[in-house]
Amino acid sequence: MASGSKLWGGRFVGDTDPIMEKFNASIAYDKRMWDADIRGSKAYAKALEKAKLVTAEEKDYILHGMDQGSEYFSNALHIFVLYLSVCVFYQELIGEPAGKLHTGRSRNDQVVTDMRLWLRDAISILKGNALQLITTMVERAAVEIDVLFPGYTHMQRAQPIRWSHWILSHAVALSRDVEQLQEINRRVNVLPLGSGAIAGTPFNIDREMLRQELAFDDISINSMDATGQRDFIAEFLFWASLCLTHLSKMAEDLMLYSTKEFSFLTLSDAYSTGSSLMPQKKNADSLELIRSKAGRVFGRCAGFLMTLKGLPSTYNKDLQEDKEAMFDCFDTVHAVLQVTTGVVSTLKINPSVMEAALSPDMLATDLAYYLVRKGVPFRDAHGISGKAVFLAESKSIPLNQLTVEDLRTASPLFSSDVSAVWDYSSSVEQYSAPGGTAKSSVAAQVEHMRTWLKKQVQ
Amino acid sequence: MASGSKLWGGRFVGDTDPIMEKFNASIAYDKRMWDADIRGSKAYAKALEKAKLVTAEEKDYILHGMDQGSEYFSNALHIFVLYLSVCVFYQELIGEPAGKLHTGRSRNDQVVTDMRLWLRDAISILKGNALQLITTMVERAAVEIDVLFPGYTHMQRAQPIRWSHWILSHAVALSRDVEQLQEINRRVNVLPLGSGAIAGTPFNIDREMLRQELAFDDISINSMDATGQRDFIAEFLFWASLCLTHLSKMAEDLMLYSTKEFSFLTLSDAYSTGSSLMPQKKNADSLELIRSKAGRVFGRCAGFLMTLKGLPSTYNKDLQEDKEAMFDCFDTVHAVLQVTTGVVSTLKINPSVMEAALSPDMLATDLAYYLVRKGVPFRDAHGISGKAVFLAESKSIPLNQLTVEDLRTASPLFSSDVSAVWDYSSSVEQYSAPGGTAKSSVAAQVEHMRTWLKKQVQ
Amino acid sequence: MASGSKLWGGRFVGDTDPIMEKFNASIAYDKRMWDADIRGSKAYAKALEKAKLVTAEEKDYILHGMDQGSEYFSNALHIFVLYLSVCVFYQELIGEPAGKLHTGRSRNDQVVTDMRLWLRDAISILKGNALQLITTMVERAAVEIDVLFPGYTHMQRAQPIRWSHWILSHAVALSRDVEQLQEINRRVNVLPLGSGAIAGTPFNIDREMLRQELAFDDISINSMDATGQRDFIAEFLFWASLCLTHLSKMAEDLMLYSTKEFSFLTLSDAYSTGSSLMPQKKNADSLELIRSKAGRVFGRCAGFLMTLKGLPSTYNKDLQEDKEAMFDCFDTVHAVLQVTTGVVSTLKINPSVMEAALSPDMLATDLAYYLVRKGVPFRDAHGISGKAVFLAESKSIPLNQLTVEDLRTASPLFSSDVSAVWDYSSSVEQYSAPGGTAKSSVAAQVEHMRTWLKKQVQ
Amino acid sequence: MASGSKLWGGRFVGDTDPIMEKFNASIAYDKRMWDADIRGSKAYAKALEKAKLVTAEEKDYILHGMDQGSEYFSNALHIFVLYLSVCVFYQELIGEPAGKLHTGRSRNDQVVTDMRLWLRDAISILKGNALQLITTMVERAAVEIDVLFPGYTHMQRAQPIRWSHWILSHAVALSRDVEQLQEINRRVNVLPLGSGAIAGTPFNIDREMLRQELAFDDISINSMDATGQRDFIAEFLFWASLCLTHLSKMAEDLMLYSTKEFSFLTLSDAYSTGSSLMPQKKNADSLELIRSKAGRVFGRCAGFLMTLKGLPSTYNKDLQEDKEAMFDCFDTVHAVLQVTTGVVSTLKINPSVMEAALSPDMLATDLAYYLVRKGVPFRDAHGISGKAVFLAESKSIPLNQLTVEDLRTASPLFSSDVSAVWDYSSSVEQYSAPGGTAKSSVAAQVEHMRTWLKKQVQ
Repeated sequence: MASGSKLWGGRFVGDTDPIMEKFNASIAYDKRMWDADIRGSKAYAKALEKAKLVTAEEKDYILHGMDQGSEYFSNALHIFVLYLSVCVFYQELIGEPAGKLHTGRSRNDQVVTDMRLWLRDAISILKGNALQLITTMVERAAVEIDVLFPGYTHMQRAQPIRWSHWILSHAVALSRDVEQLQEINRRVNVLPLGSGAIAGTPFNIDREMLRQELAFDDISINSMDATGQRDFIAEFLFWASLCLTHLSKMAEDLMLYSTKEFSFLTLSDAYSTGSSLMPQKKNADSLELIRSKAGRVFGRCAGFLMTLKGLPSTYNKDLQEDKEAMFDCFDTVHAVLQVTTGVVSTLKINPSVMEAALSPDMLATDLAYYLVRKGVPFRDAHGISGKAVFLAESKSIPLNQLTVEDLRTASPLFSSDVSAVWDYSSSVEQYSAPGGTAKSSVAAQVEHMRTWLKKQVQ
Repeated sequence: MASGSKLWGGRFVGDTDPIMEKFNASIAYDKRMWDADIRGSKAYAKALEKAKLVTAEEKDYILHGMDQGSEYFSNALHIFVLYLSVCVFYQELIGEPAGKLHTGRSRNDQVVTDMRLWLRDAISILKGNALQLITTMVERAAVEIDVLFPGYTHMQRAQPIRWSHWILSHAVALSRDVEQLQEINRRVNVLPLGSGAIAGTPFNIDREMLRQELAFDDISINSMDATGQRDFIAEFLFWASLCLTHLSKMAEDLMLYSTKEFSFLTLSDAYSTGSSLMPQKKNADSLELIRSKAGRVFGRCAGFLMTLKGLPSTYNKDLQEDKEAMFDCFDTVHAVLQVTTGVVSTLKINPSVMEAALSPDMLATDLAYYLVRKGVPFRDAHGISGKAVFLAESKSIPLNQLTVEDLRTASPLFSSDVSAVWDYSSSVEQYSAPGGTAKSSVAAQVEHMRTWLKKQVQ
Repeated sequence: MASGSKLWGGRFVGDTDPIMEKFNASIAYDKRMWDADIRGSKAYAKALEKAKLVTAEEKDYILHGMDQGSEYFSNALHIFVLYLSVCVFYQELIGEPAGKLHTGRSRNDQVVTDMRLWLRDAISILKGNALQLITTMVERAAVEIDVLFPGYTHMQRAQPIRWSHWILSHAVALSRDVEQLQEINRRVNVLPLGSGAIAGTPFNIDREMLRQELAFDDISINSMDATGQRDFIAEFLFWASLCLTHLSKMAEDLMLYSTKEFSFLTLSDAYSTGSSLMPQKKNADSLELIRSKAGRVFGRCAGFLMTLKGLPSTYNKDLQEDKEAMFDCFDTVHAVLQVTTGVVSTLKINPSVMEAALSPDMLATDLAYYLVRKGVPFRDAHGISGKAVFLAESKSIPLNQLTVEDLRTASPLFSSDVSAVWDYSSSVEQYSAPGGTAKSSVAAQVEHMRTWLKKQVQ
Repeated sequence: MASGSKLWGGRFVGDTDPIMEKFNASIAYDKRMWDADIRGSKAYAKALEKAKLVTAEEKDYILHGMDQGSEYFSNALHIFVLYLSVCVFYQELIGEPAGKLHTGRSRNDQVVTDMRLWLRDAISILKGNALQLITTMVERAAVEIDVLFPGYTHMQRAQPIRWSHWILSHAVALSRDVEQLQEINRRVNVLPLGSGAIAGTPFNIDREMLRQELAFDDISINSMDATGQRDFIAEFLFWASLCLTHLSKMAEDLMLYSTKEFSFLTLSDAYSTGSSLMPQKKNADSLELIRSKAGRVFGRCAGFLMTLKGLPSTYNKDLQEDKEAMFDCFDTVHAVLQVTTGVVSTLKINPSVMEAALSPDMLATDLAYYLVRKGVPFRDAHGISGKAVFLAESKSIPLNQLTVEDLRTASPLFSSDVSAVWDYSSSVEQYSAPGGTAKSSVAAQVEHMRTWLKKQVQ
């Protein structure tokens, strides 16, 4: 490569190693930000004009060239290269004024501006995806509110709950993700442009004007921090990790529920695949992929944090790891949210199997509560109910088949009204406090979420 | 172990494996939450009274017993055990009413309430530590605003900057940490009590009253989510990781600056140690520890996320990993912030060495700007300045020793007024846009931070 | 703290910050290595005598003092401090010769020698724990070889397999762990003593003699590497992570199998616990803990790697993170392996439920193989069998209830001999190639593992 | 998508979601294994013939088609898809016999065989890269053995050492990487083919013959383990992480040494880049990239481990994360090793600057040793030397400028022969024990490494 062909070409006399060139190159992923780069450059051209560093005519020339570039690049078939090559490209398209575009601007503040513009849009898309998923879940919960099935803790049947209560438990987690994403966005939406390489920008570049042009909420406070920090990326990567951890949890539940043994639900064929060997197999590949991606995304987060750790301040080339991580996490969460929406909206539940899975021993707590209502301290009532469970197991009969006499061996307070305990529908209705599984409480949760959703799209 | 000696004792007939017992035990760390547990239990006793599940007398009896317990436990010499043992303890202290305290409450909602109470306090302490550090930094920056030294990018001398600009770059990062911590706190400060084990709580327990008693901002929306999610822990662990990554960055800078080769600053002996072998050594152990802790804390985050990944929903015993991670991260960040405050407030800078490290080649950008001011497009000016740098290197003289004639070989636009370029004080004053290194700009940053700090303690 | 009270005391004049002191202290965990430290010091005293740096009398005096110290420290009630305090202790116990013990030795080579001695023993213990678990598994597999149950892929029933085949699949993974642990041990068992702080050791200290005294396999090649590398710790932490990932996989399987819905097996009460709220619950806490610990341990690995990343070479205080990570991973794996052995040796399987879970559709591959045996390419046979599965589903009958006529609609090659396909016992016997689920093959796997186990304890 | 167009097509009636299709697809990276896949398939065709499942003619037909495919695919311009599409491709190329190729083979054992074949080759390449780097380092160490410079601990000047000693410290670490890589390779080089989907393979497929055909060392022991484990990937990812952690350490040292402040060495222009803003800048981008990649690669490891954690046994779609991680880590380490070789072989050291950085205080340990040789216990000698250092600092003179009288205030044992201490060349020669920095010892290290290198290429 002849000296001079690089922006910093004036100085170098040695050649570069082709492997090093390739290693150093970020074109393959930088190109995803061409649109952001053009937007940032157009704003910068206007600031240069205001600072009298380019004439109005030069500025128009630049803006026109940029628009042409924009059109060119939006053609996906054009394989192109950003930054330096874009410079060359602009040079040709725009001529001499292109050489003024870097006045007071460094790649350090330029690229991080591009990233913030890009990520701001990406966050908006992900928020939309998440809201769509939450809406799907909430509306499904509203419709299927009367379906009961076993609630599990420790993967063991615990207490009867509403299916909608389960759905909402995951929707609520996702709503926290949306709120956190918005908080992150406030830290993303800060303009670094005008920070130069490290010291700031000279020439009276009007950063407030740049902020307005590019619709940022704030401008960065300190130029060294602005060019050298990637906290907004780290936060985004962790956000993606926690969000997908939520979906890995839901996927794990759904996978359990769709085993032959549980048979609570059936995935749509659209989200299943078969086996190359076993003709009868229908695998919940979609759920397995959803579950797996939490690892992938967190790996990006872990890798990037490790890259950051111990770096000295300001820009170091190590930061180049930021972009692939950002793109990969966006792409992954973007796909996972949509696929999950598809899965949730198309799966079929089997209410009769779900209700059949409720068993009297799941009402052992209710049996204790029966005694509490008769004045027994819960601690003792729990012990008595435990004895009843043990008795039923010894007799190999369901708990509700114990006679009143049997029960009285555990406590004299049992009488014939105990039969009212063995009703799953009544059982769930006890939990009417906010957050509980009673119909009124679940309906209130649906309303809460609907209200919350409305606020998000305003 | 005789059956019956555990809360759930009524049922079990087998013995437990002592290794399993130890493995299962969380006493060693749960005990840190005894105060939170007592606060939560007192509030719950009041709610039980309101629900007519205990009498006013029983409630008073419980509260009194709790206060005695509180006194007892606050004596650090008492080795004690929480939860179950506390139950036994209470049983003795309080008698029968103690057995009513678990009515409608499960360890699932009890323990997570304790954690939230504990973490809320811990966050408040960490916020105080961080604000103290930031204050120290900002005030030091205010005092030492006139000290210039080399700004580095890629660990290479880049441009002259103010020392205070460097200090503030780290302070600004920490201020983001404080803001993020407050956002997390809003998600921590949500009451899960009244969620039971999974389905909610029966008996008309007034969750709103519990919220008020315990000064939570909100109550949890869904009982399954409330008992099974540990997002607030995951968020806190990541917060700790990012915060310590910031401090690892500052520590790395300070370590560089305190090498013999840089000699920009000297650590106080209070934050250094010697060598067991080499009598002359003075090691910046404090900085190395600060740098290292980012790894430790992120390890906790990574470990916990990995534990969460793929878990089915609701409470699973796996979640028991939450507490040690939370405590360790708190302890570590608590110590690191204080040690960093000590380091920053006691280190001595060597302004003469710092200014002597400025060299004319660091003004090569200024040389290009000189040409820009004469109308040369920056791109070309950059190339011309690069040629001048190369020329100076070829002649083995500093850049500012090139004669005007020398410079004219690179561009005819150079004239004798170029000598004004070689002034570091003027150079920094160019960067007067917000965030830059000009005195006015750095002073504005100091003011910005002082205002921000005031807001934090209101 | 008065100057002079530290080994490096001659130089320091400032005081230390108590928080820094505590932060810097490693006593709490270093103390676990006192025995290793005494062994290393005794060997070093002998080397000093050989180098004529202490007299024979002084050496004996030191050794005697060490033995007294050893006795003292082995008393767990003595709270003590290592290294510096041990020095003080030795000073008192041994007198002046103690002051010679550090000749040519630095904490840098001393502590890493202690760690290697300690870890070598720890590895030996873990190997024993792993072999005990593998033995338990292999012998259980030998006994229960005739039990069939569904093999799952994608958590969906796939093909009938032997229960022992499942057990052995996990035992084989653990045998790789043992082999890898031994490879790591070869890199652990290398003597760094005699490397000084960085440059090596003067005074003709005989490192080969030290190696023999302490039974190391090799001596380290380069003193800078020897004192500054912690690869053996990193390798051990990752080993622990991969090993526990194996056990998390087995725990996940066992948890599934012990749900009410699968009911393939029942955990011993010794490895289960109950619920504070729900009297009927029996939770597989042991399995949940096993599953969770993979996260904890990998967190240690991730944290330590992150601490290592980007460190400059030789000893830096950051390396102090090595010990807690090492101890915690040892303790965790040590407990997990033993608890797993307990779980595996005491769980009860329910063979009738397991076999009842086999269903005719799991023989769809066999149906395709039936056709392959009649000359149909597998690809086509797979399609035909798939059609049969679809037909049976449409008719809501099991696959084996299709009549020959039904089957002939999919392929004319079906005839009455197809009935032989519907036999689970015959089905498994097809897989007689090495590694398969035929009885002969599983028996061969048992023998293979028995032979392997014998080799391990030689 | 019409039913029937997939291998498992016979059963499905629903459509698939295009996002799901894309999400599920692994073509983009699977294609890198086409050569391995063809090799595996050819071997399998031979085994099918031996088992009489295809005729000799069919086998030849298949092998011929495979060879044609091989030619086709080796043309990089052909964008192609593997597995299913390859099947379609083969179908056309080979006709009916292609349909027999899947007899008894599942994608589960096919793909993992491909991965092992691919990784075996990749490991061989990486070993070559590492050996080339080590050779470069060792030979450079041999040539520059007489250059002295400061050895640092805690980033502070510690003792004079040989530059070659430093080089070798990194070479030795890399030699451990090579040894570990070979151990991993033994676990990679195990044949899983013939394990089917889970249960094994029927039809008397001769796995031993397959092993020989494909030159594996062993065959897998258990089919469930063989198809469901990815330990060899996890081990490889961690290997890559530890290897790059070593290089991050070396890069950090080199970056320090190439700062203006240290000026010990100058990177070749081929491994540096300039600044878009600052004409004088020459950044060690290559070193920064090397340093950063440890994070990237460990992120892959962390992500994959997290994906594995808690998975049930046998094949789950989650495992699909294995391939991108494997490819990315190979590509990264492959590039980093080569770039590092380039950096190390072209950097220029500045011996005069290096030696000028040695200062008398670095001989404070030697001063203590002087006293040890006169019979003073090291502990006391260390204290005395510390006092001398303090005295020199108080007088603001170098340590070696203290007069004998000055020194005698610290100890009466000092006499005029102390002047011999102040010689850096003599100082390093003290460390003649194996591993030390004396010339003889460093030369022995060079020889040790040369011998080791020879063994590696045999």
